[in-house]
Amino acid sequence: TSLSFSEVGRDLPLPSWNNTKVKSAIMAFVDKVTQVDGSDFVPPEQRIAVFDNDGTLWAEKPAYFQLLFAMDEVKRLAPEHPEWKTEQPFASILNGDMISLLAEGRAGLEKVIGATHADMTADEFHRTVARWLTSARNPLTGQHYRNMTYQPMLELLNYLRSNGFKIYIVSGGGVDFIRVFSENLYGIPPEQVIGSRLKARYESNNGHPRVVMTDKVEFVNDKQGKPIGISQSIGRRPIFAVGNSDGDLQMLQWVTTGKGPRFGMLIHHTDGKREWAYDRNSRVGRLDKALQAAKPYGWTVVDMAKDWGVIFPPVRPVPP
Amino acid sequence: TSLSFSEVGRDLPLPSWNNTKVKSAIMAFVDKVTQVDGSDFVPPEQRIAVFDNDGTLWAEKPAYFQLLFAMDEVKRLAPEHPEWKTEQPFASILNGDMISLLAEGRAGLEKVIGATHADMTADEFHRTVARWLTSARNPLTGQHYRNMTYQPMLELLNYLRSNGFKIYIVSGGGVDFIRVFSENLYGIPPEQVIGSRLKARYESNNGHPRVVMTDKVEFVNDKQGKPIGISQSIGRRPIFAVGNSDGDLQMLQWVTTGKGPRFGMLIHHTDGKREWAYDRNSRVGRLDKALQAAKPYGWTVVDMAKDWGVIFPPVRPVPP
Ligand SMILES: [Ca+2]
Ligand SMILES: [Ca+2]
Repeated sequence: TSLSFSEVGRDLPLPSWNNTKVKSAIMAFVDKVTQVDGSDFVPPEQRIAVFDNDGTLWAEKPAYFQLLFAMDEVKRLAPEHPEWKTEQPFASILNGDMISLLAEGRAGLEKVIGATHADMTADEFHRTVARWLTSARNPLTGQHYRNMTYQPMLELLNYLRSNGFKIYIVSGGGVDFIRVFSENLYGIPPEQVIGSRLKARYESNNGHPRVVMTDKVEFVNDKQGKPIGISQSIGRRPIFAVGNSDGDLQMLQWVTTGKGPRFGMLIHHTDGKREWAYDRNSRVGRLDKALQAAKPYGWTVVDMAKDWGVIFPPVRPVPP
Repeated sequence: TSLSFSEVGRDLPLPSWNNTKVKSAIMAFVDKVTQVDGSDFVPPEQRIAVFDNDGTLWAEKPAYFQLLFAMDEVKRLAPEHPEWKTEQPFASILNGDMISLLAEGRAGLEKVIGATHADMTADEFHRTVARWLTSARNPLTGQHYRNMTYQPMLELLNYLRSNGFKIYIVSGGGVDFIRVFSENLYGIPPEQVIGSRLKARYESNNGHPRVVMTDKVEFVNDKQGKPIGISQSIGRRPIFAVGNSDGDLQMLQWVTTGKGPRFGMLIHHTDGKREWAYDRNSRVGRLDKALQAAKPYGWTVVDMAKDWGVIFPPVRPVPP
């Protein structure tokens, strides 16, 4: 009746995490808050964990995947819009000219959002994104985006869930975009996604009412918007927060300065071989102030190169 | 091994509902969508039910209970504000002059909200409301507000939950107010409450960050705001909706015109003896257009006098 090492190992939590102090810190925290008779016990309804998405649950190079989606959509829709050949920022996208596109700034981005995200119901947008996820590939890795989630983070989500945590995504990205794949990729239902959003409009439409997205950005769920978005959606302060950039600074500060046991964690992209190494000088996912705050606030910093045994999960087949 | 009638009856769902066609319609719908091999089967994650609060889950006379809370708060805080004796709308509240208070309109209401709801975190506001719920009594019934929920509706919530539904409150009232008692009175956790909200502000405050409510109304979750609020919070269209006034018209239209099986229900306050009888001429909870829409849209209308065996639950003792 002896068990081989591999049989034991298979049931241990967080198998893709190396046996470093980061893994120990996570497990010690979870043990502590779930000890029914312990002084740090947290009842299940208060075990709320919040996770950033881009650069925390999946990759974000060469740009946020939602921006890559919008660019792919502009290309797909271009035949219906011959005027885009000479109209910015569409012309830059169609020419693959990322530098000129970025030069168009916020106004350019709003035009792209208007052309690819607006005047649709959430259901209609869902179908568009779902189709893209099935076919599109990341220009740097050649992989479908569903294969660019982080295996250790998928294991962390499962581990927290099996210990009674309720998990939310709290992203600067668009809430309707993330809701399309959150259940499928992460096991997080759409109602547990908090993100930036467009202003919505209700149309009654001859007995066929619809809720339609406009092209106006109503709420930016980034930086101080993250604690505000969490307050409005959940109404409780989470006890566990994970992010990877300065956009997560206020969320981590707010979560980890509440009363009782708290856990804050930063994903530091240090692995230039298996993924990408970047922090304070990166245009996408800049990590500077939040990294400086990690020590004074007592946050755990994941060194991807050292703490993660694997980065990406086994390649997922195309869904049926 | 025979069972007495009362032993059988105790386990039947909806015991406070009379055996009328309304009860049959509810149960037939739930049976239909939970039949795994039936053509109307709805998978559990799509079994989302939305309930209005005032006049649907608890009473709303002589005014919305949140307004009565605000008036009680003005009285409690008056010793710190001697200027209120001559300043409207506070003077009217302190003199018990409801007519003059209502004459102050929206501007007056905003001043009252500013004095009683703003410059607080959700936690601080929670404590204020929780204390009020323990002590305050409704001026018409002399009851604590927790005793003015509707017993048949509590049973309906339980019945839906036990059939795999996820239940949300979708109220024109303030989300932070309802979140204080939603878990305790209805078994609905705070993150499943959607309501009107004040604009929130993030303060960093020397290492003690807070999310504080301002006195600016940011979103009114009423009429067409209800479908918009549901879309933003849940990201899916519910299949079951209950309301009691014209403020629920668009929510009911939107929910019940989706594809697949749908259930819409209106609570019609018809019982002047056990509660109050009111509809199209009531200032609070006006029910006119939505009642006219019930037949063309196929909504079930609850006649409280005929369909409910009891109205209020047994009086709850003061919580410890
Ligand atoms: Ca990020
Ligand atoms: Ca109502």
